[in-house]
Amino acid sequence: MVKRGGLYGDILHEVVEHNGTLYLAGVVAENGKLDMEGQAREVFQQIDRLLAANGSSREHVLTALIFITDMGQKPAMNRAWKAWLAPAHLPTRATIGVADLDGYLIEVVVTAAVR
Amino acid sequence: MVKRGGLYGDILHEVVEHNGTLYLAGVVAENGKLDMEGQAREVFQQIDRLLAANGSSREHVLTALIFITDMGQKPAMNRAWKAWLAPAHLPTRATIGVADLDGYLIEVVVTAAVR
Amino acid sequence: MVKRGGLYGDILHEVVEHNGTLYLAGVVAENGKLDMEGQAREVFQQIDRLLAANGSSREHVLTALIFITDMGQKPAMNRAWKAWLAPAHLPTRATIGVADLDGYLIEVVVTAAVR
Repeated sequence: MVKRGGLYGDILHEVVEHNGTLYLAGVVAENGKLDMEGQAREVFQQIDRLLAANGSSREHVLTALIFITDMGQKPAMNRAWKAWLAPAHLPTRATIGVADLDGYLIEVVVTAAVR
Repeated sequence: MVKRGGLYGDILHEVVEHNGTLYLAGVVAENGKLDMEGQAREVFQQIDRLLAANGSSREHVLTALIFITDMGQKPAMNRAWKAWLAPAHLPTRATIGVADLDGYLIEVVVTAAVR
Repeated sequence: MVKRGGLYGDILHEVVEHNGTLYLAGVVAENGKLDMEGQAREVFQQIDRLLAANGSSREHVLTALIFITDMGQKPAMNRAWKAWLAPAHLPTRATIGVADLDGYLIEVVVTAAVR
């Protein structure tokens, strides 16, 4: 069965669950004027909320696709990342430098397990 | 068990199924000369066909990665998207602006549930 | 249950398993000075090792996201790809031209089935 949550503007659901796996929408910062570390921190806080609201948590992230527009700011992103996730629960990850995130510095797509 | 369908040029299968989940190949328009809305419409029609041929449908899309080369054309893409999917069945989604799709304006990677 | 393997620098795990599915981290070449075909070959060899160490193999790849920085070198990537995978076991795939892979020509994100 497929469960969907958080309808956003007739465009997407924020979370879809299938077979014990949660597929999250791409998450950007609420405040796009923050610097990379600030945007990354906000992204991870939003992911925390989405996971908690759907029977999961940051300890259950399976994999993350991280899109950023300036690879030079990967260290700043990593500071927020390391503050967010303990080593024992780190997911797999890819960080891809892309051309345009509609003005944002970072967008993160997470897949997680239901607890 | 893993089921594969639609071998394409010794390069990829168009659909792979595992544990009730369908992984689709990246889909581009058949006619790369169409504008964004036209290309998006063709992409979604092809995804419809791939889903129908593999025991799924547009009501069972879990998540979509949408790569586009011009973020300014996201509204045109969204028109085709909204015409394709009813709110109740919207998947999660991320739209990423990338450098090069081999001449196409949009490529879409879908994961779906088997009915 | 979620199983994680190959902790890398307090940043990521190389492989995470959940419900019979393996999520691999983005893989780049060990030697970033190689040309595209050489980097792709090294990437696929590393994926082979990660799969073998986690109860899977190249015959069980479900889908691959291939990020490259120069679409003109896709044919060179495809030569290494075809040498790696037999037609019967080809996964689904998308090849996306992106702006920056931290100096590498190719990064590959694989999802696979446990045997």
